Amino acid sequence: MFKSAESVERLVNWLARLPGIGRKSAARLAFHILKMEASEALELADIIRDVKEKVSFCKTCFNISEVDPCHTCTDPNRHADLICVVEEAMDAAALDKAEGFKGLFHVLGGRLSPLDGIGPDDLRIKELLGRLEDVKEIIVATNPNVEGEATATYISRLIKPMGIKVTRIARGLPVGSDLEYADAVTLTRAIEGRQEL
Amino acid sequence: MFKSAESVERLVNWLARLPGIGRKSAARLAFHILKMEASEALELADIIRDVKEKVSFCKTCFNISEVDPCHTCTDPNRHADLICVVEEAMDAAALDKAEGFKGLFHVLGGRLSPLDGIGPDDLRIKELLGRLEDVKEIIVATNPNVEGEATATYISRLIKPMGIKVTRIARGLPVGSDLEYADAVTLTRAIEGRQEL
Repeated sequence: MFKSAESVERLVNWLARLPGIGRKSAARLAFHILKMEASEALELADIIRDVKEKVSFCKTCFNISEVDPCHTCTDPNRHADLICVVEEAMDAAALDKAEGFKGLFHVLGGRLSPLDGIGPDDLRIKELLGRLEDVKEIIVATNPNVEGEATATYISRLIKPMGIKVTRIARGLPVGSDLEYADAVTLTRAIEGRQEL
Repeated sequence: MFKSAESVERLVNWLARLPGIGRKSAARLAFHILKMEASEALELADIIRDVKEKVSFCKTCFNISEVDPCHTCTDPNRHADLICVVEEAMDAAALDKAEGFKGLFHVLGGRLSPLDGIGPDDLRIKELLGRLEDVKEIIVATNPNVEGEATATYISRLIKPMGIKVTRIARGLPVGSDLEYADAVTLTRAIEGRQEL
């Protein structure tokens, strides 16, 4: 593509491997980086080095963290008897931004997916079971799709018999959305999950 | 967002400054980089360093290049009497990938845009005029929008009086598209630019 600039070609190739970035977007990004001040572009090089050196996993909740245990796990203002189970660290970050949850997290590192060969042993389920002492409630916040639901059911069947309350995040209409355009399954869930006013 | 991983937060912030990448996409990309092998992620750091150190502009055509003059300008198989004028280096790369053009390029570095305060002196127009000796034809391949057309008209008015042929790339229906869905202006251009079969 850029015959006279092999390094730019390499940059495009690297960026095009990122999820959701095709070759055209990659070229646009590479071109943007080219036009940046050198100091700003080199900052990314430093940040990536930093991320790779410092960031690891909290060995309690398996969220990404620079310290172990992470700040969330050691925060005295959080309720240690309430654990929210999510698939990925991104999900925990999203829930953390939304107010209203003050418990701890547990990152499974994926969801059950027999088609992809991902079974219970590939997720941090054993580690979750090891955290249940003194826990009163587990909120399962896996994604509301087939695999996420299967994972939720699996976890619930494991933990409920231990006398711990297991709940699932509500599925219904997104706030600000239009009932007219909602799909049938979401509407069914919204009606099933109705609450008294 | 990632309270326990400040470097990840910095990575998200950096990525979110790229064009077309919002905070959510930036978080997804950062997370992907986190999951990468360290060697693969650090490769980007190296590439960016490389790009910033090596890549500059060809002082003849102003395309990006690691050498000056660039490989295109010095290629003996290209017709030196034919110059294609484009707005950005990306455009030259796109035209180069499409077969059928074997001339040289000239990158203006933008387009005339009085509203943004970009006048002729901000583009490499003077440098273009300095390359016209022995040139038989200038193809103006600025973008087919208002500013691109204005830039094309400006260049044509400058160069035509010098006895050099100035042409404009064809505007019409994209190959593989559907006449039914084309906009009126494109259809008008397609009819205006009709050619005998």
